[in-house]
Amino acid sequence: MTKATVATKREEPGRSGRKRRAILDAAAEIFLRQGYLGASMDDVAAQAEVSKQTVYKQFVSKEALFVAVVSAMTGAAGDEVQREIARLGEQDDPAKELLAYAERQLTVVLTPRLMQLRRLVIGEANRFPALGRALYDGGPGRAIAGLAMAFARWTERGLLAIEDPGAAASHFNWLVMGEPVNNAMLLGDESIPKPAALRRHAVDSVRVFLAAYGRPG
Amino acid sequence: MTKATVATKREEPGRSGRKRRAILDAAAEIFLRQGYLGASMDDVAAQAEVSKQTVYKQFVSKEALFVAVVSAMTGAAGDEVQREIARLGEQDDPAKELLAYAERQLTVVLTPRLMQLRRLVIGEANRFPALGRALYDGGPGRAIAGLAMAFARWTERGLLAIEDPGAAASHFNWLVMGEPVNNAMLLGDESIPKPAALRRHAVDSVRVFLAAYGRPG
Repeated sequence: MTKATVATKREEPGRSGRKRRAILDAAAEIFLRQGYLGASMDDVAAQAEVSKQTVYKQFVSKEALFVAVVSAMTGAAGDEVQREIARLGEQDDPAKELLAYAERQLTVVLTPRLMQLRRLVIGEANRFPALGRALYDGGPGRAIAGLAMAFARWTERGLLAIEDPGAAASHFNWLVMGEPVNNAMLLGDESIPKPAALRRHAVDSVRVFLAAYGRPG
Repeated sequence: MTKATVATKREEPGRSGRKRRAILDAAAEIFLRQGYLGASMDDVAAQAEVSKQTVYKQFVSKEALFVAVVSAMTGAAGDEVQREIARLGEQDDPAKELLAYAERQLTVVLTPRLMQLRRLVIGEANRFPALGRALYDGGPGRAIAGLAMAFARWTERGLLAIEDPGAAASHFNWLVMGEPVNNAMLLGDESIPKPAALRRHAVDSVRVFLAAYGRPG
């Protein structure tokens, strides 16, 4: 992910919008490097080359700024995944589509930046529950909701046999994401699988899922 | 989990062993309450009612003490799970045994104390990789290794059809643990399912797993 993708998609145009974007980019760098408690609004202002007053004008507090950074970063990754999901249920080959989706999601989510953001949010989840909620909603929550819609549509069309699309979507999500995301949380970025291993993992996950939820025969 | 179970199983007997255990229990409380950076060896010594010198005699540094606490807490939970696993492959009904195992593992792992320990370790995983490794080895790593042995034994005995027991064990582990553990990480302890919901989740997970890995027919 490049620095620019940290900013939210719909932002005010013009000078104020550019400043907001510069602050979000700067805050992402500072928070990821220094942690939540270690980061200061002074550091963010200096990095964004704006006054501290401007930072507070755009974001009322450090917590509000952190929530905005989390939403922007997970939103940017989520948007990419979401573009895939919206088309899924209309495709005719669930096995092929789910494999492409799984590989895409693994590739988009398993970046050192997003894994570090996730560690940071989890580490502060007790003190700042809004952060965990923002990451959940923009991340797994959104992916699972989209998958559930695709599964319902495929079942309507007779291509899958799923009674509870929400439960099935959660199963699929965690079959695909559970191992690599949790390994990255505990064992660090070196545990992020290389593309060939990610592909094998995606193939395996789809096979297990379809054995349980595919149409018989 | 009671306070006492924090201590390691095999400890030196006598006065020194009792002190070590008191320090580990005190350190668990302090770290869980104050975080890693917020905790001091003075606080631990005061809580354990020993001198700071005694704390350093038993554990050379704050990091070493934290690693010992993580190992002891995950070890205590892991021991319970491990007693289940050792017997699994010799049982005759994989469906029944896997359901009992899944329920047991969910119940043992999804406690507010272990979830808070996990958040703390993940939050510090970059600065202190040894903590993440200790939690992984005592937690998912150990569970997956034990399950792989059971799956290999059941396949030898013709009760399951599993080519790669390690991959299958990871699938089973994350089908069962992925959703509730990750929800607890991001959404807090209120997201920990009640026993009836945990049971439904265990039933669902075992059904999906056996659809993929059970013997046909």
